[in-house]
Amino acid sequence: MTTELRPSAGPLAGQVRDAADLLAVMLDGRSRTRAELTSATGMSRSTIGAKVDALLASGLLVPVGAAVSTGGRPPVQFRFDPTARVIVAADLGATHAAVALTDLAGTPIETHSGDIDIAEGPEVVLGWVIEQARELLLKHDRMADLVGVGVGVPGPVEHSTGRPVRPPIMPGWDGYDIPARVAAELPVPVLVDNDVNLMALGEHARVHPGVEDMIFVKVATGIGAGIITHGMLHRGAKGSAGDLGHVASRHAGDNQCRCGNYGCLEAVASGPAIAARLRSQGIGAERTVDIVNLVEAGNLAAGNELREAGRMIGESLATAVSLLNPSVIVVGGLLTRAGEHLIAGVREVVYTRSLPLATGALQILPARTGRDAAIVGAAVMVTEHVLGIRTGADAVS
Amino acid sequence: MTTELRPSAGPLAGQVRDAADLLAVMLDGRSRTRAELTSATGMSRSTIGAKVDALLASGLLVPVGAAVSTGGRPPVQFRFDPTARVIVAADLGATHAAVALTDLAGTPIETHSGDIDIAEGPEVVLGWVIEQARELLLKHDRMADLVGVGVGVPGPVEHSTGRPVRPPIMPGWDGYDIPARVAAELPVPVLVDNDVNLMALGEHARVHPGVEDMIFVKVATGIGAGIITHGMLHRGAKGSAGDLGHVASRHAGDNQCRCGNYGCLEAVASGPAIAARLRSQGIGAERTVDIVNLVEAGNLAAGNELREAGRMIGESLATAVSLLNPSVIVVGGLLTRAGEHLIAGVREVVYTRSLPLATGALQILPARTGRDAAIVGAAVMVTEHVLGIRTGADAVS
Repeated sequence: MTTELRPSAGPLAGQVRDAADLLAVMLDGRSRTRAELTSATGMSRSTIGAKVDALLASGLLVPVGAAVSTGGRPPVQFRFDPTARVIVAADLGATHAAVALTDLAGTPIETHSGDIDIAEGPEVVLGWVIEQARELLLKHDRMADLVGVGVGVPGPVEHSTGRPVRPPIMPGWDGYDIPARVAAELPVPVLVDNDVNLMALGEHARVHPGVEDMIFVKVATGIGAGIITHGMLHRGAKGSAGDLGHVASRHAGDNQCRCGNYGCLEAVASGPAIAARLRSQGIGAERTVDIVNLVEAGNLAAGNELREAGRMIGESLATAVSLLNPSVIVVGGLLTRAGEHLIAGVREVVYTRSLPLATGALQILPARTGRDAAIVGAAVMVTEHVLGIRTGADAVS
Repeated sequence: MTTELRPSAGPLAGQVRDAADLLAVMLDGRSRTRAELTSATGMSRSTIGAKVDALLASGLLVPVGAAVSTGGRPPVQFRFDPTARVIVAADLGATHAAVALTDLAGTPIETHSGDIDIAEGPEVVLGWVIEQARELLLKHDRMADLVGVGVGVPGPVEHSTGRPVRPPIMPGWDGYDIPARVAAELPVPVLVDNDVNLMALGEHARVHPGVEDMIFVKVATGIGAGIITHGMLHRGAKGSAGDLGHVASRHAGDNQCRCGNYGCLEAVASGPAIAARLRSQGIGAERTVDIVNLVEAGNLAAGNELREAGRMIGESLATAVSLLNPSVIVVGGLLTRAGEHLIAGVREVVYTRSLPLATGALQILPARTGRDAAIVGAAVMVTEHVLGIRTGADAVS
């Protein structure tokens, strides 16, 4: 993937990439001496010395005082310093957006957010993103430390080019070159992915860093999944992997989906579908958040509909479990903020439907990273790219 | 995975693993000098020298004459020699088994096969495998060169322990310690996986070595899939990934599957289900192979039923395409030997049902590795393990 990404040359790219093999060892946060690094990497002392010097000069490694002496001059230990550089991470939703300045581990330093309609188009929305980024960088005096920008959008993206591909709720964005627009004003690598993939990366980095096989499901106005295999985000050949919302559901019948197809899971189990069923029972519910409010106000019908939606999603997830055999399924998104109804329905069907070998060690958990998940994921995506690491988000958390 | 595999110490394990980082570079088959290896790996000259010497002594690297001289003493080039060691690869089917002696690239040197009923149980079947392996090793005088045994079985396996887990057509094998039984007589690492995973590994290594995202589907008496993500076989948390036969199909209704569950794809689209539908039309078909013979004899009903089964499989595969976004789907197994009927049905539904972004670059191809696929895959699995390589089967093909 990295070969196609552009712009490829951030200010640090050469320096960091040459030392990436060394830095990869240090990303676990442990302190080490030069001798330990020589033995851990098999590289020569002179190679290690040069790389350590370069990384010390860059600030990515910092000395942490003397190790236990073995008699002679006490060797100096080093550790990775994730605060040495910054990332701009943007999470663009349908009607709301957030831009954060984060460190290399994805920890937000400060976040700006606002009510921005994605349908205003890329010039307006990205203009706002760049403006917020500049403000944050100037305020914290970190302009020189910026290594990359990560952007999450609410629709399918060809990750290798950073262009949205026929995104249903993003008029004006189809094929738009997001990296070129952002890099024209912030000349660093710019990476783009859909919001669910970034939520999966963020949740994986923060909560399940050692897990090799995970599925993150977002249930809100849309339904989507981010899939981790071999400890890495699985984007697939064109970046469209995890498209759970548009798998065929036997419950969907002839309902037309906003994607144009018929019978999609999203057409019967997403926020708008649940709201429509509640309205047909005479209950006022227009937006997805209304369902959450109804449940919190004790409306039984809303809770029941959420659970039923969870069962429908569970049927499609059971197929994903048979195919992928994950050890963790995380369920997140706006509709999981209304208690356990939705996840209870998911669990009920997945554990009934899947074979024992696939569910014996399977945990189905609510998301814990919260609204920050996509921001953390966007930053992790950038760190993996600019540090040349391809070994899973856990390396930098 | 490698940490749990046992027995872990083959005769070469220490020697090969210490030099694995070097060997990994050489597995592409290119010739290189010591200087080129020093620059390619970043290791010191003395480290490279010691590892090259060890690998030359082991025979895994062989000299290939002088490179173009740069003035001084002509540097010697080396290349990886896959024939330097051998593997025993066994492919156990329901009623037929094959045992091959292969080189490290999975190329068979000689294969023994026979009609062995898996239901005779592990003592009988594995006794036969060990007997064939001994004969092959003695005949070719390669006993001292054996680095591992790979075994494929027709049922689910916990790959980390090599034990079958509730395999439906393997009475007596549930939880049986296949590696311990084989290693008691052939003291090398013994690795076990299900036959479909190994067919996927073999087809990937031989035909699609550069492909990162692939699904191999086997359609025969049973239905299963082997999934490649990030260029590597995706086994999942418990080794049960790729269980396409037991996903719910809307066509299966209340048909009980041999797994005990209801509504599985295998209950309506496998060989026995197709044969039953042909019998209900007054056409004599008992075994899966009878369907192939009918189609080859020009029976239209058999061709139509195969195409219809392909459509049902295509519906489930469309979900897999939405989730995984592969660039290649390979369709293999006995029922694909009867012309294009089955794959035509698969293509028809997958291309209709999936979103354009997911199918734009998707190829749906018949398997080309043939009956050898699982043997090649079993050998590739062993090579990846004993050489400590985890970078995809293509490395050794």
